[in-house]
Amino acid sequence: MNISEPLITQVEHGTITSVPGVFTSSCHCGIRKAKEDFSVIFVPGDTDCSGVFTTNKFAAAPVAVSKKQLEKNRNINAIIVNSGIANACTGDQGVANALKTVELAARYLNIPEQNILVSSTGRIGRQLPLDKIEYGLQHCIRNLGSENGHNTAKAILTIDKHPNEFAVKVSWAGKYFVIGGIAKGSVMVEPNMATTLSFIATNAKISYDLLDKLLFDCVDRTFNCISTDGCQSTNDMALFIANGESGIEITEENEELFGLFKQALYVMLEDLCLKVVEDGEGATKVIEIAVNGASDKNEARSIGKKIANSILFKAAMYGEDINWGRIAAAIGSFEGNIDTSKIDISCGGISVMKNGMSVGFDEDGANRLLKERHIKFVINMNSGAGFARVLTNDITYEYIKLNAFYKKQQ
Amino acid sequence: MNISEPLITQVEHGTITSVPGVFTSSCHCGIRKAKEDFSVIFVPGDTDCSGVFTTNKFAAAPVAVSKKQLEKNRNINAIIVNSGIANACTGDQGVANALKTVELAARYLNIPEQNILVSSTGRIGRQLPLDKIEYGLQHCIRNLGSENGHNTAKAILTIDKHPNEFAVKVSWAGKYFVIGGIAKGSVMVEPNMATTLSFIATNAKISYDLLDKLLFDCVDRTFNCISTDGCQSTNDMALFIANGESGIEITEENEELFGLFKQALYVMLEDLCLKVVEDGEGATKVIEIAVNGASDKNEARSIGKKIANSILFKAAMYGEDINWGRIAAAIGSFEGNIDTSKIDISCGGISVMKNGMSVGFDEDGANRLLKERHIKFVINMNSGAGFARVLTNDITYEYIKLNAFYKKQQ
Repeated sequence: MNISEPLITQVEHGTITSVPGVFTSSCHCGIRKAKEDFSVIFVPGDTDCSGVFTTNKFAAAPVAVSKKQLEKNRNINAIIVNSGIANACTGDQGVANALKTVELAARYLNIPEQNILVSSTGRIGRQLPLDKIEYGLQHCIRNLGSENGHNTAKAILTIDKHPNEFAVKVSWAGKYFVIGGIAKGSVMVEPNMATTLSFIATNAKISYDLLDKLLFDCVDRTFNCISTDGCQSTNDMALFIANGESGIEITEENEELFGLFKQALYVMLEDLCLKVVEDGEGATKVIEIAVNGASDKNEARSIGKKIANSILFKAAMYGEDINWGRIAAAIGSFEGNIDTSKIDISCGGISVMKNGMSVGFDEDGANRLLKERHIKFVINMNSGAGFARVLTNDITYEYIKLNAFYKKQQ
Repeated sequence: MNISEPLITQVEHGTITSVPGVFTSSCHCGIRKAKEDFSVIFVPGDTDCSGVFTTNKFAAAPVAVSKKQLEKNRNINAIIVNSGIANACTGDQGVANALKTVELAARYLNIPEQNILVSSTGRIGRQLPLDKIEYGLQHCIRNLGSENGHNTAKAILTIDKHPNEFAVKVSWAGKYFVIGGIAKGSVMVEPNMATTLSFIATNAKISYDLLDKLLFDCVDRTFNCISTDGCQSTNDMALFIANGESGIEITEENEELFGLFKQALYVMLEDLCLKVVEDGEGATKVIEIAVNGASDKNEARSIGKKIANSILFKAAMYGEDINWGRIAAAIGSFEGNIDTSKIDISCGGISVMKNGMSVGFDEDGANRLLKERHIKFVINMNSGAGFARVLTNDITYEYIKLNAFYKKQQ
């Protein structure tokens, strides 16, 4: 094996601080009870940053502020994240508080305000307590470190059970770079251009316009293809910072390296997505819905999401009942023109509907497949070349418990 | 009080057979276990019939057959209804079986085939057992009666807990007519032009084109404004038969009588809707969402439904938690242009959001309101005159139980 052979490998216990030159710190500043609720992600020096944001009309103050910051400047050194309060539906005061957070962070980090982004998650309609934020900033900045990624992955969660973190190492020409990230999933996981809070970093060097292109494309195929409950969040954002520390520069001209970088980013986002869906609000199963043969990619994804968002289908999955009629009904609710007499459905290789009609199949055998933790359905529209893959999970008693009694768990 | 004064009154224990000249019968023919599963609704003589049907692309065979029947002929004398098998995704065989049901019914009732409609509800993808259907027809036709409405209201149910039935009596000029109906709700209650199975009859005389107009309008304001789980059914239909038995004729020229008839129909459908929502799949609460001040009626209804279909919102209602941020997030996911800075939300008279911002309010007081069985939210978009009212319910542990383990309850 040639030592300079390109290679993508998973970093063991990888997280955002697996990326050289990335430092984080988290603490409990008192925004919510007991759990850590405040984090600083710090990437000093020259960087390129890209972000995608929720399209919800009630986008939170930190979304509005971070979007504006990124419009002016792409050299981002710090992301300030709090859990417990979303700072959404908080009007001018909410925006002022987000800006004040930026101002305080700039003072304590001794960097320009324009180099700082903010991100929040938690309950809507409450103002940020600035005194606690200031305490959090002081405490976190004193304790920034390159070993703190796991802790920060936990601190950004709300009711997720497990931290979502991942890193890949890409070897190239005797050198290597790392892409690492963390994500907060669960609750309102149905993205529109973005989802959840996710923070990704790399020590490759890559211009922000190329970063935009890659992030939009990869998010579109990953985070935009998962759905936990069909609800869209006010606070979603995915931020990606590249610090160039490795000395490896990604350009479109170097096609092989560019392809590797893109593949590594995709693998990483895909893993974070899978973790978010696995952890999705009391889920017991991950369900993959592959839609083939649609007239185009958008139709395929829309149909995949119709199924993924059918709570009747999700309840059937929890009950391990191959009630594929609920899939047909969900497909049939698609607004566009589709030819139902061409549609096939199969589950784990067992054909359950062919040409829009039930086919005789071993129901008990199919129901046994549903006992697995990962279930795959393939829908073939037999009408074109459009393809999409959507990940979702089942809906369980635990979902109701988590979301009906959310406040008591904060 | 003038004896000829117009008056709409509720018929005590009213149902479809409260309408003179309407006969029904139900029995257990063996399509499903234990529960009655087969019904005949018989309205002899000259009639006018109107129907609205699901727009699901996987519309069931009985929907296709009944739509075709109604295109050819509006003098309908019988509706044959089975529960347990939906006869959806059953291809040509399914259509042939629905037509065979019509043929058999015509033979045993001794009426033309074209005067018969069919309707099914239950599991998708299974063929109707024609031997059992034939037994059911013979048995039911022998036992048709004007006292059987309550029994038929039960026989058409699937996992509804309570029969949904209602009748109103309209006195006019010393005479009166009745409008009575039954509905099967629960599971996939989010209509598009229709919902559930509902069968309505009146002994007023009214032409089918006027009936169409009134039924479409009233269904649009009632059944099209409820949502239990956001899933659209393959089998929904609402059928309305008028036999003219009362001698009272409804025409547009007689504006007062026309208005009364329309009002009575609306009251009746509204009551059936309320019962469907109250009974909706383990619900503990009925939630009314009034959207005012939208740019038009359609925007108001779309926004109302975004809220009604947010399972996060519905879970919060079950938990009696005034988590209005989930309402804001649902409104914000509306695709059209809205000005969030104008939007107000109140719950039972308590303002919780004003101009798109949280307002200080007594959270414990608001949460106490949520302990009621009926909860009302008012959303004011403050942008126009569009209004809609949407009814929904909470999502509970019982919903999961009913829908995950549906098969075991059949």
